[in-house]
Amino acid sequence: MAQKVKLSTIAETLGVSTATVSLALRDSPLVAVSTRDRIKEQARALGYIYNRRAASLRTSRSGIIGVIVHDIMNPFYGEILKAIESELDRSQYTFILSNHYDSVEKQRNFIETMLQLGGDGIIMSPAIGSPPEDLELAEENGMPVILVARTIDGVTLPGFRGDDSYGISLATNHLISLGHKVIAMVGGTDQTSTGRDRYQGYVNALRKADIEVLPDLRIPGPRTRQGGFEAAVHFLSLPQKPTAAVCWNDLVAIGLMNGIARAGLVPGVDISVTGYDDLEEASIATPALTTVWNGQSEVGRLAARALLDRLAGSHDPDGLHLIKPEMRIRQSTGPLKPRR
Amino acid sequence: MAQKVKLSTIAETLGVSTATVSLALRDSPLVAVSTRDRIKEQARALGYIYNRRAASLRTSRSGIIGVIVHDIMNPFYGEILKAIESELDRSQYTFILSNHYDSVEKQRNFIETMLQLGGDGIIMSPAIGSPPEDLELAEENGMPVILVARTIDGVTLPGFRGDDSYGISLATNHLISLGHKVIAMVGGTDQTSTGRDRYQGYVNALRKADIEVLPDLRIPGPRTRQGGFEAAVHFLSLPQKPTAAVCWNDLVAIGLMNGIARAGLVPGVDISVTGYDDLEEASIATPALTTVWNGQSEVGRLAARALLDRLAGSHDPDGLHLIKPEMRIRQSTGPLKPRR
Repeated sequence: MAQKVKLSTIAETLGVSTATVSLALRDSPLVAVSTRDRIKEQARALGYIYNRRAASLRTSRSGIIGVIVHDIMNPFYGEILKAIESELDRSQYTFILSNHYDSVEKQRNFIETMLQLGGDGIIMSPAIGSPPEDLELAEENGMPVILVARTIDGVTLPGFRGDDSYGISLATNHLISLGHKVIAMVGGTDQTSTGRDRYQGYVNALRKADIEVLPDLRIPGPRTRQGGFEAAVHFLSLPQKPTAAVCWNDLVAIGLMNGIARAGLVPGVDISVTGYDDLEEASIATPALTTVWNGQSEVGRLAARALLDRLAGSHDPDGLHLIKPEMRIRQSTGPLKPRR
Repeated sequence: MAQKVKLSTIAETLGVSTATVSLALRDSPLVAVSTRDRIKEQARALGYIYNRRAASLRTSRSGIIGVIVHDIMNPFYGEILKAIESELDRSQYTFILSNHYDSVEKQRNFIETMLQLGGDGIIMSPAIGSPPEDLELAEENGMPVILVARTIDGVTLPGFRGDDSYGISLATNHLISLGHKVIAMVGGTDQTSTGRDRYQGYVNALRKADIEVLPDLRIPGPRTRQGGFEAAVHFLSLPQKPTAAVCWNDLVAIGLMNGIARAGLVPGVDISVTGYDDLEEASIATPALTTVWNGQSEVGRLAARALLDRLAGSHDPDGLHLIKPEMRIRQSTGPLKPRR
C-alpha cells in the first residue's frame, strides 16, 4: 500500500503553511495564482491524490461564527459584537451568541456545540479561570479562536483589548489636574486581570502625584448602572469625603451620577465622575459623561479581521494586541470646589 | 412484510397524544404510572416493536435552546432572556442567541442551524414579515417554537406578549389626568403589529377624553436612547407646543429626557414624559421614569414554561397570551404647568 501524501508534506517541502496548501488546491482566490500553481505542481510531483469529498468535509464552511462573552446584555460587549458583525458582513454569516456568566462549564458546552456544528470560528471573552485546554480543543479541531476584552495567562491566541492600566491612569490624571485629591474608585472587581490592571492604573497615577492611596476609597461592586446607583450612599458617607470618583465603566458612572443627583448634589459640579468605555449613551447622559474611550469598535473590528486571516490560513500575528485608550472630556468633571 | 405499528396508531386507539405514547414507552415520569401501563399494554396488543436506538435518535435532547430576537442588545429582549434562562435553569441548557435584525433570511438560517444541531426548541420574537412556513419548518421537524413579544397573523403557536394598546392607553390616561392636552407620541414605528397597537392605544385614550388627535404629534423614530435624544429638538420645536410625551419605550424616554434637560428644561416639571417596559434602569433614571410595566419577566417565564410543556408532549394551550401591563408612576410626570 502506497504511503499517503499529506498536505503537511507538501507544505513542508515548499515552506508554506498547510492551510495555504489546502486553499491553493481548492483554487481559493486568497492564495496568489503563482503560489497556487507552484503548490499544485509540487502536489502532482509528490503524487498527492486530491480527495474532493474529504476536502469538502474538512474545509466546507458552515458560515457560523460563535461569539461567547460574560453577558451580551452589557453594552460594552454589545458594541464589540456590532463591530464584529459589521466587519464580517452580517448577511454572509449566522452569528450565534452565548453568555457564559463566568462559568467555565457553560463555555466548554458552547465550544463543543460549535464543533458539532462545524462552526467557522469563535470570538470569545474567556470566562474567569478558563483552562487553556478548553481553547486548544477548538484550535486543534480546526476552529480558530480569537480573544477579546480579556486574555488568559499561558494562551498565545490572538487577543485584542484596551490597555486598562493606562486608560484608568488617564482618567485619574484628569481628575488630579482639576485639583481633586480625594478620589474614590467605584465599581468592578479586583478578581480579574482587567480589575487588577485598572486598580493599578489608579494607584500609579495617585502615587505619581504624591497623593496617599487610601484603601477605603476603593468601593468594589457590580459593573452595572444599579451597582453605581447603590454605591452612591456609601460613596457620599465616606469619612474622607471624596470629591471625585473614577468609575469602573460608564454604566457604574451613570448609576453613580443618578444616585448623587438623588442626594441633591450636582454631578460635574459638586462631585466629578469619570466613566470608562465611552458607550454610545455616555455622550447623551446628563451631564454628558467624561470617560475613556476603550476601543470596543477597534477590538471588534481587529478580532474579526484576525478571524478572517486565520480562516485564510494565516497564523500570524499571534498574542495580545493592546488598544490605546483615549480621554473624552465632557461635563461630568469639573474643578475642585472649596470644601463642602 | 408486516406493516409497522406507529406511535400515532397507539395514540389514536387510546385517545392520547403521540408524544404521551412516546414518553410512556420510555418510562417518563411525566406520564402517570396508570397511563403508562395502559399505553404499554396497548402497544404490546398491537404488536408494536420498540426500537430503542431509533427512539434515542428521535428523542435525545441536545440541551440546546435557541433564542432569536430583533436585537438582543435591546434590554427589553435582554430582560426576557434573563427570565427564560432563570426559568429553564442556566446550568442545564446551552442557550444560543441570535439577532435577526428583521431579516427573514437570517432568521431562517438560524432555524436551520438549530435543526442541524438537534436543538430542543426555539423561543423567538419573529422578524417582520416572517412567512408562517419558516416556523412550521421547525415544528414539523419536532422542534417546538414559542413566540415572545411579537406574533404573526395566521400562526397559532404559543405566544406571549404585553397588551400594547391597553398599556399605552394607561400612560396616555395618566397624562390626561394630570391636565395635559397636547401630548406627543415619540419613537418607534407603525410598521409592526406592536406599533399599530401602541398608536391605537394612544389615539383611543385621546378620543375618549375628547382631545383632538393631531398627526403632527406622532414623531416616529429609532427605539433607542439616541433616537429619543435626537427627537428632543423636533419635539421642542413643534408649533403645537406639547407639554407631555408618551414614549415608545424607556430607552426613547430616557434619551428624550436627556435632550430636554440639555435644552434647559426640567423633565417631570416643564415636560412630562412616560416610558414603556419598566426596564431596570427606569427607576434609577433622573428623574425616576414614570412608565408602564410590560411584563418582560412574565413573558420570559411563561414562554419557558410553555417550551417545557411542549417538550413534555403537551400541545395545549396554543395561541396568544396577552399580559396585562401596569402603570408605574414616578417623577418624570407632573401636573400641567401654566402655558410656557
